[in-house]
Amino acid sequence: MEQETFMIEGRHAVLEALRAGRPIDKLYVLDGCQDGPVLTIKREAKKRDAFVKYVTKERLDQLSQTGKHQGVIACAAAYAYAEVEDILRIAADKGEPPFLILLDNIEDPYNLGAVIRTANLVGAHGVIIPKNRAVGLTAAVARTSAGALNYTPVARVTNLARTIADLKKEGLWFVCADMNGTVMYDLDLKGPVGLVIGSEGEGVGRLIREACDFTAAIPMRGNIDSLNASVAAGVMAYEILRQRMG
Amino acid sequence: MEQETFMIEGRHAVLEALRAGRPIDKLYVLDGCQDGPVLTIKREAKKRDAFVKYVTKERLDQLSQTGKHQGVIACAAAYAYAEVEDILRIAADKGEPPFLILLDNIEDPYNLGAVIRTANLVGAHGVIIPKNRAVGLTAAVARTSAGALNYTPVARVTNLARTIADLKKEGLWFVCADMNGTVMYDLDLKGPVGLVIGSEGEGVGRLIREACDFTAAIPMRGNIDSLNASVAAGVMAYEILRQRMG
Repeated sequence: MEQETFMIEGRHAVLEALRAGRPIDKLYVLDGCQDGPVLTIKREAKKRDAFVKYVTKERLDQLSQTGKHQGVIACAAAYAYAEVEDILRIAADKGEPPFLILLDNIEDPYNLGAVIRTANLVGAHGVIIPKNRAVGLTAAVARTSAGALNYTPVARVTNLARTIADLKKEGLWFVCADMNGTVMYDLDLKGPVGLVIGSEGEGVGRLIREACDFTAAIPMRGNIDSLNASVAAGVMAYEILRQRMG
Repeated sequence: MEQETFMIEGRHAVLEALRAGRPIDKLYVLDGCQDGPVLTIKREAKKRDAFVKYVTKERLDQLSQTGKHQGVIACAAAYAYAEVEDILRIAADKGEPPFLILLDNIEDPYNLGAVIRTANLVGAHGVIIPKNRAVGLTAAVARTSAGALNYTPVARVTNLARTIADLKKEGLWFVCADMNGTVMYDLDLKGPVGLVIGSEGEGVGRLIREACDFTAAIPMRGNIDSLNASVAAGVMAYEILRQRMG
């Protein structure tokens, strides 16, 4: 059973899950807690017939996987991975050129969660991650995504380079974030696009980089050598949105 | 003594501190560790006459404050806060219009570290944080800044609204990130500027928002209500750089 349920922890994440209509099996709430956000969560839970159980702080600490429950933990069905085709269909249904974010071996759950959050807000249709090495959709990812995981599909593929090759046949082109690339403001980033972001330590792997059509660089005016991976993803994804809006 | 030294943990952070010429009192290295990044750190430490001490994993775990030492911990003099005037002087020395990033009550050390990292790379001259409530320059902040704290000055002020008023007299104008503002692409963000970013939960406080000249919004195309604070800071700071470059 344990693989089939999923803990959502923290007020923001639980409230987003409820509002997104995600099925909640059980909601644990700190007994006696009456502050505003928790009352809102209880009200939403009631609306959606979620079973609320009042427990002590000790019990919540024991249940918590992230150590940051803020008085609320929801048990939900596990997040399912989407298929790449689902993501393309969402773009087609919206009548928009596909906009995908692909992550090459991001290992930090906070970065993955923050990128899914950005993907949602920048209007990307989905996120693609590789199966090996990289982090999956853990509770920490769900929490850091601040609810975006309820809306933005994440597909997991065996071979990212092959997925890129397949998607090129569908008319997508790929831009890879790399400090040695062309400054992103000088590239035309419109049209059906896949943005590829690498891991913090190593950047985008050689094979993946070679599979991309362009490498785009974020201008660097400082002394150190790279942005945080989720910040880099955000800056580049918003440059794509800016050009799409223009 | 404890207040006067400062632990820098993790390979990236330690290497950056050494390369920036930051005085290291002592460097703890995992005994027997021979992999590339650690050898590079040992070489840099030798160049700079840092005292290297080889210790067991248990000893490193015991010394570690972040739990993520990756086999290296450096003891350095504590990071000193800069004065706001120092930041303005750096801009003047470079012959550039001042570009400051002000954080209103960011409580998450990872967000603060990531913003300092972004500030360094976007070419901002410094970061200003308030004294009360907000997180200070802890080891986690230093580590997440990936070395940027060695280069980018951080000033701490008692009253952020008053600092904004004082800086306006120096010719700076202030833009506050807020979802109800004007879309940032439609604002002229050039010239001597202070970018104000709020906390994740509450955004920028009312008094601070009212002290600003403009509110700028990052376009939101999704279902959830906000970006991660350090991603939002990055996206907006890079829009300022883009306009300065243009």
